[in-house]
Amino acid sequence: MFVVSAPSGAGKTSLCRELIDSIPDLRQSISFTTRNIRDGEQDGVDYFFTQTDSFQRMIAEQLLAEYAEVHGNYYGTSLETLNTAEAEGVDLLLDIDCQGAAQLKKNYRRGVFIFILPPDFAELKKRLYNRGTDHEDVIQRRLENAEQELLQAPWYDYLVINDDFQSAKKKLMAIITAERCRMSRTTYLLNNFTVKGDK
Amino acid sequence: MFVVSAPSGAGKTSLCRELIDSIPDLRQSISFTTRNIRDGEQDGVDYFFTQTDSFQRMIAEQLLAEYAEVHGNYYGTSLETLNTAEAEGVDLLLDIDCQGAAQLKKNYRRGVFIFILPPDFAELKKRLYNRGTDHEDVIQRRLENAEQELLQAPWYDYLVINDDFQSAKKKLMAIITAERCRMSRTTYLLNNFTVKGDK
Repeated sequence: MFVVSAPSGAGKTSLCRELIDSIPDLRQSISFTTRNIRDGEQDGVDYFFTQTDSFQRMIAEQLLAEYAEVHGNYYGTSLETLNTAEAEGVDLLLDIDCQGAAQLKKNYRRGVFIFILPPDFAELKKRLYNRGTDHEDVIQRRLENAEQELLQAPWYDYLVINDDFQSAKKKLMAIITAERCRMSRTTYLLNNFTVKGDK
Repeated sequence: MFVVSAPSGAGKTSLCRELIDSIPDLRQSISFTTRNIRDGEQDGVDYFFTQTDSFQRMIAEQLLAEYAEVHGNYYGTSLETLNTAEAEGVDLLLDIDCQGAAQLKKNYRRGVFIFILPPDFAELKKRLYNRGTDHEDVIQRRLENAEQELLQAPWYDYLVINDDFQSAKKKLMAIITAERCRMSRTTYLLNNFTVKGDK
């Protein structure tokens, strides 16, 4: 389970998409959300779009591995998503905010937590303005959110600075490759050495 | 500090050479040894070849970060090697046995410990015979050593199976790239966000 968080404007979504395309046995986790579907988004691809009462029922029935409320909308990952990936032996890539990540960190021991940032605050601001998709007040809110999220960064396992897209992609791919070599995940391979044959 | 251990025949030496050639700011640590210099080896390149009494003086004067005695010969890494690399801001790659690695693990908190293995015992045996450089009794001794070293493997941070040279090289490079992104080594980059400019 690879959990990626970043302030808006860090390039997280494009990076995650590239990782999914480049790395075998890595699946994008699809979150549930109560926010409205946007142009170009597809239900079941970008998110599972759901009603607030359905979402609250999932919370009450403890069907969620993590959830967060951001600006009046719920976002969450179902336990089923995690269990299915585990049963099928694929790694999950979760693109979630710091609140949800903190819940997963607390409840699951095996996750790898990665924080993505642009090189500095000025660059973050520049990218948000250059997107040209958001109003001034939305940008201000995103910048304030970024400050809050930065306070969470230090407990993450890895920090990837997205100064150059290809270099950031390479680092993220390296983290996934390396984590798959961790002794805690590969000890079983040592068993091939207990059978020594006709020594 | 990246510490690599492996039984003879795992391909460790060639892999380390490739890493040094491919990765910037990574320097091969040169060990001191009391064993005889072999054809093709160079003093100060492959090892610092030294006399037993000089080596024992280094032990007595606590000039070594780790050392081990293997089949009557001493091998060790000087503290100076570690300190110089740190002062110059380069990472060290240490190609040492499990005894020395265990000392570094105990004395230094920052090392990354990687164990390399061929896919199974039969393959290890085959590689040792195919090298054609060692006598039967030397091969037997190496196989027995391998068994001892395998008992140490579980405390290493990473396990890389060298079934295919390029794939093993890629994994080792990924481990180094990933470890350089560890939050514990990159937290200082978060400081770029405390200066917010004309927000």
